[in-house]
Amino acid sequence: MEKDFIMEKRIHNFNAGPAALPLPVLKEIKENFLNFSESGMSITEISHRSTLFEEVINDAVDRTRRLLNLDDNYHVLFIQGGASLQFCMIPMNLALPGSPVNYINTGTWSAKAIKEAQIQGKDIRVIATSEDKNFSYLPTVYTVDKQASYLHFTTNNTIKGTQWQQFPDGQSVPLISDMSSDFMSRPIDIKPFGLFYAGAQKNLGPAGIAMVIIREDMLERVPDNLPTMLKYTTYKDNRSLFNTPPTFAIYVIGMVLKWLEETIGGLKEIERINKKKASLIYKVIDNSEIYQGTTEANSRSMMNVTFRLPDEKLEKRFLVGAAKNGLNGLKGHKSVGGCRASLYNAVTINSVRSLVEFMNEFEKKL
Amino acid sequence: MEKDFIMEKRIHNFNAGPAALPLPVLKEIKENFLNFSESGMSITEISHRSTLFEEVINDAVDRTRRLLNLDDNYHVLFIQGGASLQFCMIPMNLALPGSPVNYINTGTWSAKAIKEAQIQGKDIRVIATSEDKNFSYLPTVYTVDKQASYLHFTTNNTIKGTQWQQFPDGQSVPLISDMSSDFMSRPIDIKPFGLFYAGAQKNLGPAGIAMVIIREDMLERVPDNLPTMLKYTTYKDNRSLFNTPPTFAIYVIGMVLKWLEETIGGLKEIERINKKKASLIYKVIDNSEIYQGTTEANSRSMMNVTFRLPDEKLEKRFLVGAAKNGLNGLKGHKSVGGCRASLYNAVTINSVRSLVEFMNEFEKKL
Repeated sequence: MEKDFIMEKRIHNFNAGPAALPLPVLKEIKENFLNFSESGMSITEISHRSTLFEEVINDAVDRTRRLLNLDDNYHVLFIQGGASLQFCMIPMNLALPGSPVNYINTGTWSAKAIKEAQIQGKDIRVIATSEDKNFSYLPTVYTVDKQASYLHFTTNNTIKGTQWQQFPDGQSVPLISDMSSDFMSRPIDIKPFGLFYAGAQKNLGPAGIAMVIIREDMLERVPDNLPTMLKYTTYKDNRSLFNTPPTFAIYVIGMVLKWLEETIGGLKEIERINKKKASLIYKVIDNSEIYQGTTEANSRSMMNVTFRLPDEKLEKRFLVGAAKNGLNGLKGHKSVGGCRASLYNAVTINSVRSLVEFMNEFEKKL
Repeated sequence: MEKDFIMEKRIHNFNAGPAALPLPVLKEIKENFLNFSESGMSITEISHRSTLFEEVINDAVDRTRRLLNLDDNYHVLFIQGGASLQFCMIPMNLALPGSPVNYINTGTWSAKAIKEAQIQGKDIRVIATSEDKNFSYLPTVYTVDKQASYLHFTTNNTIKGTQWQQFPDGQSVPLISDMSSDFMSRPIDIKPFGLFYAGAQKNLGPAGIAMVIIREDMLERVPDNLPTMLKYTTYKDNRSLFNTPPTFAIYVIGMVLKWLEETIGGLKEIERINKKKASLIYKVIDNSEIYQGTTEANSRSMMNVTFRLPDEKLEKRFLVGAAKNGLNGLKGHKSVGGCRASLYNAVTINSVRSLVEFMNEFEKKL
């Protein structure tokens, strides 16, 4: 392990979420934890109505705008409940009466989004699915309903290890996307999107908050009679301060975005780093006789590299050996088994090199 | 200011929420922030499915059970969205078809709870209100509908400075209560309650989570066709781990409850301390010619002491002077003006003594 990790007694964190955060950010939080910005209070103790917190939330919003290159037409919202609450809020707020909603099903999280629209009795059409091959690829053939309220898809499938490199074409239909596991990991063209959202606990900060980017015209769809906390307009009209927001989470998100903007240098640069990290591991997999990727090569994720070993016994030995070498969080999701290395923005190239080294040595010793 | 505060550059925090947290808890969070429980990860980086986090959440639940003396009939849930989301979830989950819901209106937060039941078109009857005297007292005359699904009231009114010392009598109707600003501040008889809830950011921990205590029989009312994230059964069936919960917030809540249980000695002891703290300030008010309490004496809150000075100019001078003496967060809520000292569990008696001293000196110098 490199020096920094040993000195801090830190391990290499490949968890799928909650996940690694940038070490300089964690150090700054620790340093200021009893006295935020010379206030004499912890960040967890200051009022969400104070000037100090106004600065925190405004800074996080401004950085989001700059990083994603958002124009005034888009609003940046902080909403509690994670992506799972968004699965329910999206059809509730944005399905137009008498118009179908379109979904692409690429795995567990897409299916959960579809289920919430079904519960509400929406007119759903799943226009494409990769269920036939256990979600190991991304479908390329589909027809979008011209009158659809929106087309929903998942940009990166954390469990299955697939990621859209080129987004589906919604034609005139607004795209809506769950970007929880690859938000801010690469530049994207936002214009086709009516809304996109991400649970924070992968690329952004602590669990317990989602960021939602919504286009102005979508807000006109919000029905009047929804519960206040479930209307996108409530968050837009009150700048995410209708009630007390998760102040600590927003503070950390702002610091992570600052790190991304100022230390890394933005989305183009993080994309270059993320591609490098993923390619190092995929190279091991492609040249190996024991590691086998679980997805089609052209659907591979840069964020979650999923792979299997010849049998479960060997997988267990691999995971135990990895943990002994300070490589943590490599177990695949319980629903699919196997191994998974999550390579979110904060996972360093040094951590990836340590993993690659271990993978090679493990194979060599067999 | 006492030594600890000066050494840590801390101020006396009388904020209404987010609010003061116990200094020993903050210090422990800081100490372990880069390496939680020798995991080599920050608490913000560990998986919510890990054994480590299981221990954290189970410990918080167990401490809640012991502190509140809950039997197996009650479930302890962690839900995002604060008390505001509970205002909507309660009628959605617990209003029985064809049965009215009863509310007592004692101020801003009660009114917000009522509004969310109205949005859902429930059959609401506000059986008592103190609106006639600007919510400066708690109503004692009311008739509960025998067939009501529940009777909802707010135990402590943060903005108006009133607190029920003896809870309303629901007779056979289950009580439901927003305890956000006095949860865990005193022992309570839980038997009449079908549900009670509290946003964390006053007596429990960081903002962004609510604790909900629900009685088993209430869960039978939950309609099948609700969105998954809005059903109490989802949280009960998955031990609040259906999706990724706010792990950091739960961790801090557990530590605050540990402090309350082990350092303070439980709810009886914290009640004694809280009464002492409040009485020190009410004594100043009662003996003063410039400070005037805003509530009837028998409705006074032990948590939020609200008072006015003869005019707004003097109030401003008071607040500026207090801030210069390290006494922070004393401004009344924007909707009512004046001054307010919030005396949640973590506010020390030393902080209160500093405030009392300042109040006396301020009056003397006039």
